[in-house]
Amino acid sequence: MRMLLCSTLASLLVATTMQAQTRTIAERLGHPRDAKLLILHADDLGVAHSENAASFDALTKGGINSASIMMTTPWVTETAEYQKRNPNADFGLHLVMTSEWDTYRWGGVAPNDKTASLHDPDGTMPRQVGTVATRAKVEEVERELRAQIDRAYAIGLKPTHVDSHMGALFSTPELFATYAKVARSYKLPFLAFIGPMNPAARSALQPGDIFPDTVFDAGDTPKEHWKQFYLDALKNLKPGLTEILFHLGYDDAELRAVTVNHDAYGSAWRQRDYDVVSSAEWKQALKDNKIVLVTWRDIQKAMYPNAMTP
Amino acid sequence: MRMLLCSTLASLLVATTMQAQTRTIAERLGHPRDAKLLILHADDLGVAHSENAASFDALTKGGINSASIMMTTPWVTETAEYQKRNPNADFGLHLVMTSEWDTYRWGGVAPNDKTASLHDPDGTMPRQVGTVATRAKVEEVERELRAQIDRAYAIGLKPTHVDSHMGALFSTPELFATYAKVARSYKLPFLAFIGPMNPAARSALQPGDIFPDTVFDAGDTPKEHWKQFYLDALKNLKPGLTEILFHLGYDDAELRAVTVNHDAYGSAWRQRDYDVVSSAEWKQALKDNKIVLVTWRDIQKAMYPNAMTP
Repeated sequence: MRMLLCSTLASLLVATTMQAQTRTIAERLGHPRDAKLLILHADDLGVAHSENAASFDALTKGGINSASIMMTTPWVTETAEYQKRNPNADFGLHLVMTSEWDTYRWGGVAPNDKTASLHDPDGTMPRQVGTVATRAKVEEVERELRAQIDRAYAIGLKPTHVDSHMGALFSTPELFATYAKVARSYKLPFLAFIGPMNPAARSALQPGDIFPDTVFDAGDTPKEHWKQFYLDALKNLKPGLTEILFHLGYDDAELRAVTVNHDAYGSAWRQRDYDVVSSAEWKQALKDNKIVLVTWRDIQKAMYPNAMTP
Repeated sequence: MRMLLCSTLASLLVATTMQAQTRTIAERLGHPRDAKLLILHADDLGVAHSENAASFDALTKGGINSASIMMTTPWVTETAEYQKRNPNADFGLHLVMTSEWDTYRWGGVAPNDKTASLHDPDGTMPRQVGTVATRAKVEEVERELRAQIDRAYAIGLKPTHVDSHMGALFSTPELFATYAKVARSYKLPFLAFIGPMNPAARSALQPGDIFPDTVFDAGDTPKEHWKQFYLDALKNLKPGLTEILFHLGYDDAELRAVTVNHDAYGSAWRQRDYDVVSSAEWKQALKDNKIVLVTWRDIQKAMYPNAMTP
């Protein structure tokens, strides 16, 4: 009986999986097959009050609809406060393995005597993804990822997804597999970068996984073309699920100090992102291009119908 | 022979101790018996870029001459950077047992699975000194204090002294004894509050200890009397060693978010402190009142002539 049940379940799973493979992401999220789905996502919440304040403003006004939080940074408790007031806020965890800025640094969340391969001798995480790729022990990565997620729940956050700060967890197949395993164990959908960067990562994926087909940010777009870059992106959006990664902030004393000596992803760079999503043209372009905005909460519901969500 | 040596050493120590007791602090620091010595000290460095920037400005311009850093807060690496550029900066460690603000919170430095009595379930330190006094286990306090000091050295800081954020370590004789013991083991002089608040703490003191006779801040001075309060304090300074505890900051978006819902020690409060020490009247009053400015580095040299100082 038990065997039969297992066998029947297995058949059902295979059938479901096959069905999942033949349905588009749009269909799995309840939209027409060729819908242009978009997540407007702010990264790096927690890193500074300036980053939080600009992101909260854009979330509240609808210029973006999702964000993720770095649990190793000081302003995380402010994001928990925001989500208490806005329980539908689509907040994920921007899992952190690096501490990239010049003078403003952080360590991990797990007891650091149990995660030595993740830190420099001064207790801060390394600046470079390459250091993580070559030095981090996967069992310590798993411990640190679980500590970051557990801390999020402990301070009252209700995450809907995870992704990876600076893509550090996409840098080797072993790191990606650890990240996917941890995400699954919490029933959290995860962002994946698959492609030339990391083809071997594909082996960690399962047919039921849902993640964006296309992910981009403004990168090294010349500043005079900033708004046009994003407006063109909306105009040229393809069917399927796209995620735009914004990094929103106010160009003020705090954010300038955080990002000192860095133009790319610096304070003025983040203000430009904020200015775009706060503009009237942005809202109009979202309407004009027949875009369907979705969130990671929608993905979580599709992947884990019984997951606890706020 | 060994016995004789010990006995001779013991006699010498008694003599030195007795001499120490008969000399005033001013004499022990190389000044006339009745000199009015003053330390102009900024607390809370590390808590925000705004706090650091205002304190660095006042240190550089001479409105203050000493400061202490909270190793549990995010901007400590910026203070290490400042001390690298200014190796004589008189930086101590503002040892932290509490996390007092509404939404902006921090945990400790030691692995938190070994310091459970120092945290709330969400991993942050408690808001109230009373919680520390009643809940903290002294062995966990010692572990956390050592972790804070060790982290300071690890990020390149060269502390000259320690004191206690919100006076939490002055709140019971056991906490004070632990703090004094740890400070001595690193050859760091320590601030002590002795008096009605904590008479039993006196038993942890030794005759060679040097610390201010008088310590104060602006407290609940009405804001219209802020500058006059400090100018009067300089005019009425008594012979001996006084320390004024400033809390300097720029009243900006970051500091307002840190101190949200708090007027006392809030953002505008800290701007008032900064405005006083940055004023021309302040510099003039220091000259007019025949005040001798000293630092904790001077105290460290007197207490521990062989201590490593930068």
